[in-house]
Amino acid sequence: MSAAGSGPEDLARGVLEGGARSIGRAISEVERDSVTVPAILRRVFPRTGRARIIGITGPPGAGKSTLVQRLAQAYRRAGRRVGIVAVDPSSPFTGGAILGDRIRMSEIYTDPGVFIRSMATRGALGGLARATSDAVDVLDAAGFDPILIETVGVGQDEVDIVRAADTIAVVLVPGLGDDIQAIKAGILEIADVFVVNKAEREGADRAVAELSMMLDLAGHPEWRPPIVKTSAPSGSGVPEAVAALEAHGAHLAASGEGRRRRSLRARSRLLALLETRFRRAIEARAPEPDGLEQAVAAVAERREDPYSAAARLFEELVPPPREAAERRSG
Amino acid sequence: MSAAGSGPEDLARGVLEGGARSIGRAISEVERDSVTVPAILRRVFPRTGRARIIGITGPPGAGKSTLVQRLAQAYRRAGRRVGIVAVDPSSPFTGGAILGDRIRMSEIYTDPGVFIRSMATRGALGGLARATSDAVDVLDAAGFDPILIETVGVGQDEVDIVRAADTIAVVLVPGLGDDIQAIKAGILEIADVFVVNKAEREGADRAVAELSMMLDLAGHPEWRPPIVKTSAPSGSGVPEAVAALEAHGAHLAASGEGRRRRSLRARSRLLALLETRFRRAIEARAPEPDGLEQAVAAVAERREDPYSAAARLFEELVPPPREAAERRSG
Repeated sequence: MSAAGSGPEDLARGVLEGGARSIGRAISEVERDSVTVPAILRRVFPRTGRARIIGITGPPGAGKSTLVQRLAQAYRRAGRRVGIVAVDPSSPFTGGAILGDRIRMSEIYTDPGVFIRSMATRGALGGLARATSDAVDVLDAAGFDPILIETVGVGQDEVDIVRAADTIAVVLVPGLGDDIQAIKAGILEIADVFVVNKAEREGADRAVAELSMMLDLAGHPEWRPPIVKTSAPSGSGVPEAVAALEAHGAHLAASGEGRRRRSLRARSRLLALLETRFRRAIEARAPEPDGLEQAVAAVAERREDPYSAAARLFEELVPPPREAAERRSG
Repeated sequence: MSAAGSGPEDLARGVLEGGARSIGRAISEVERDSVTVPAILRRVFPRTGRARIIGITGPPGAGKSTLVQRLAQAYRRAGRRVGIVAVDPSSPFTGGAILGDRIRMSEIYTDPGVFIRSMATRGALGGLARATSDAVDVLDAAGFDPILIETVGVGQDEVDIVRAADTIAVVLVPGLGDDIQAIKAGILEIADVFVVNKAEREGADRAVAELSMMLDLAGHPEWRPPIVKTSAPSGSGVPEAVAALEAHGAHLAASGEGRRRRSLRARSRLLALLETRFRRAIEARAPEPDGLEQAVAAVAERREDPYSAAARLFEELVPPPREAAERRSG
């Protein structure tokens, strides 16, 4: 009730005070890319950078939601307040199943020391990665630590989203067989920790051995991703998974890799925001003479080739550096 | 030998004369996004817009390559010269299998009336869709008609690529079962023709019935995608598939939908080229004071929030419309 005002300043204040309603509303603003988001982020951003951010990804059916619940409980027992952002970048070809998964998190759903939020695609280009980073900032500023980002699936969208994390755990299950073959190339690149979940199933040791062999071939001069077996329903292996995640956190801090990743993330985040602004500027000026609409017509009717039209439009929007410098000094 | 010169003008002339070596080299330029591409496109673009462009997509293992070969042979028998662009947008999580598929196209590989080209991802954002459109323009200007675009997989990248086509055929096989369920939403949106390939297999009629039911539910006021059963190795059903593709071509022309699609394509092509230019402009000015590098450092160190930094960088690059108008009139 202390943050009952509806402006972005009030909302940001409520977030910094850790108010659940303010946090929820701020993430809703973030999710729908409201005009208030820059003001909210401006206020909360200086209080971010304290949380450990852990990404958890892997194919559908790997038991990620249950594992996330177990990890959250383990961190709770250590006295930590845990934020969870569950993201479903459902492409046109997949249906989102993550909301159903929420039900399986019922054990932690009523714990005030855990904040759970699901986000689904809004169809915006790069929009879900942006919204995820912003939501993580809101939870970080509100004092949650660690923050777990869970994604469904193993495509490029998921990779973009999960890269908002400091440490990435890839969850697999025994018996994926060909699936592991198909996805191993990309997984080798992004995994900091491997979790073989549903380890009570037949083939768990073989999955571990196959992963281990892949890691031998790949070579990891600085950090070899540990492989942890878990059985999420019983919680077996969960302390080992937490230890592996924390060990990677220590490696990030000691090696400078953490700093490098934060810099890469700042870069991709800035580029995404710049591209969104650029697209909006094009759209805003589209109906003008020499705007996008006329160029589209010219290209569609084969009167002008796309490269010439794009070059012309671009110079209208973005003056060459010399001209821009003159404008600045004049 | 007539187009032995190495400049883009010579290359474009060779393309317009239909020289296979010039066409191959022009597509290589397109594929690696060479600086010569704008000049090549400027020359060939006025001669495009004549070919029928047909996209063929569907899950791996649906037999698309063999089907494409049969379709190409059918068009060849009708005296047409056929261009084929096979695109593999292998994400970090998939390995490209399409080059192996080429071997199965050996029957048409030596026919000078067929031009086959494989393209694989270069990791560039939106780069493969751009390269596909440019390669189609090269083949179009060289007189190939129809041009078949084949993609592997059913993700967003494939959708973006196959949207360079006038008519999209989605190839499925009996027994996909859950896969059909998982992908049906997106497929309903992009398919103009459904092909149930490997129709000799059990379950073909059920697959057709399921698709038909989906179409009943979706409702298609203007064009209901026909469902054709094929057996690519024997060629059975291929004439019916060609007839369905041609019927959709007639619908595009009669309804104005073809014009609408060409306009949408011109638009997304222009936007992609503009975004690439914008990203390059950012990179070119990144080391300058107030450039990207300083902003990245400020955000990574939490001295400035990403929205404020993006706003500042953007105004440096793209002046507000009023200022731009003053520059134009001055």
